[in-house]
Amino acid sequence: MKISIIGVGLIGGSLALKLKQKKAAEYIYGIDNNSENLKDALSLNIIDEKADFKTGIEAADLIIIAVPVDSAKNILPEVLDLINDRQTVMDVGSTKSGIGKSVENHPKRSRFVAFHPMWGTENHGAKSATAESFAHKAGVICDREKSSPDALELVENIVKNLEMHPIYMNAEDHDVHTAYISHISHITSYALANTVLEKEKEEETIFQLASSGFSSTVRLAKSHPEMWVPIFKQNKENVLDVLNEHIFQLKKFKSALEKENFEFLEELIVNANKIRGILDK
Amino acid sequence: MKISIIGVGLIGGSLALKLKQKKAAEYIYGIDNNSENLKDALSLNIIDEKADFKTGIEAADLIIIAVPVDSAKNILPEVLDLINDRQTVMDVGSTKSGIGKSVENHPKRSRFVAFHPMWGTENHGAKSATAESFAHKAGVICDREKSSPDALELVENIVKNLEMHPIYMNAEDHDVHTAYISHISHITSYALANTVLEKEKEEETIFQLASSGFSSTVRLAKSHPEMWVPIFKQNKENVLDVLNEHIFQLKKFKSALEKENFEFLEELIVNANKIRGILDK
Repeated sequence: MKISIIGVGLIGGSLALKLKQKKAAEYIYGIDNNSENLKDALSLNIIDEKADFKTGIEAADLIIIAVPVDSAKNILPEVLDLINDRQTVMDVGSTKSGIGKSVENHPKRSRFVAFHPMWGTENHGAKSATAESFAHKAGVICDREKSSPDALELVENIVKNLEMHPIYMNAEDHDVHTAYISHISHITSYALANTVLEKEKEEETIFQLASSGFSSTVRLAKSHPEMWVPIFKQNKENVLDVLNEHIFQLKKFKSALEKENFEFLEELIVNANKIRGILDK
Repeated sequence: MKISIIGVGLIGGSLALKLKQKKAAEYIYGIDNNSENLKDALSLNIIDEKADFKTGIEAADLIIIAVPVDSAKNILPEVLDLINDRQTVMDVGSTKSGIGKSVENHPKRSRFVAFHPMWGTENHGAKSATAESFAHKAGVICDREKSSPDALELVENIVKNLEMHPIYMNAEDHDVHTAYISHISHITSYALANTVLEKEKEEETIFQLASSGFSSTVRLAKSHPEMWVPIFKQNKENVLDVLNEHIFQLKKFKSALEKENFEFLEELIVNANKIRGILDK
């Protein structure tokens, strides 16, 4: 199978490496506005050939859109305009309602499969790509009834090769759940980094004292704004909803401390501990 | 050197394993109110012998107090009452002002060295102890001028054997810095877990969708209340100060989203990204 990847960054590049390793991709075209990044992808053997937009799309059996979610929404209709009925298009974006709506009435809508792999790191660019990716995480396929059976089957086969377990849901539910489980973690982590940077003016002390606990909690704060601003933008309502709840939950800790109500503080912690039972099933 | 460890949990047990591995400890007595935990410690070869409080303290060159910070504060004067001028006592607690004040006027104050290793995991109990611990993290020694030179030297040697880099500061500064860099991370993580548990009623969905990003941010929420309530209690003022700042920082994200001020949102993220430069020095 020949694959074109639009946006050979962390996710696009890692897909390329993994699918090559699993022999699911025989030839990979890379399409990217950033010529430096494309050069990296070629020299790291992530892609086999640089291609321009039109040539790359026409040459591939499968086109993977792996750019920030606002660009993806704009690019998808253009890609569908160029393909025939045997080609398949998938995306990998972290929000799903917007991109679905962008091709709702497109005559080639059924060639598109909306996909979101629940994997990523705080890094970006082709240089961060790794074949040690995706495995054992969820691969969410949205609105599968809107895709042709053969296109869906092809993407399901990709999910299998990524060693992910497929989950099916509609785009609206996806965006609600990812606001809870992924997007809010990033805001929390960004805000925590800003808190520490604001309060702790001695950078050397942060560096020296940082424990693995702090590094773990603040890791996502290294994530790139080019990816995350569009996600928050497209999932604004859901993210705000969870963010309000999060501030409310923090205020409970604040109140417990202020009132020296340590029984309540313990209750809050015991409740939070339940996440262990859910995550470590 | 013979060592008695009061509280053979994650930290006490990991100290024992590491110091044995480095041959810094020739014989280890374990003292613990929890007989089940003490049995585990013995069968896992973390300690060589169970001891009662008085016998264990009198038999050791070094006594390490590794219980929650409120108990540590109560236990330290009792330990100092029992020792002679050749014995040394250290603690490993995450707050330092309270324990220092508890022995301010004790005639044996100079036999005590206040220590805080910046290492831990979300687990607890002897069964979680590991020799793969402490290395390359900071080992903070507080108020060193209040300890006898030989007691200080002994603890510095322990720090070296733990492969930690020693940092010196006074107890008040320590409690301010750890509120920023460690304690707030735990509150953030607890509150994030509670947010998700409150909003996401489908536990199966949390489990299935949880990405490595979410797991990383919420990891500390598994931490035990028996350890953390006393820390928040003893460092209340500093923690509240940082918590207020953290809520303020989260409100900036909220405001940027509500007003659709995506330039401001990007600014906030770009600022948070600076943590990379500090942590990855």
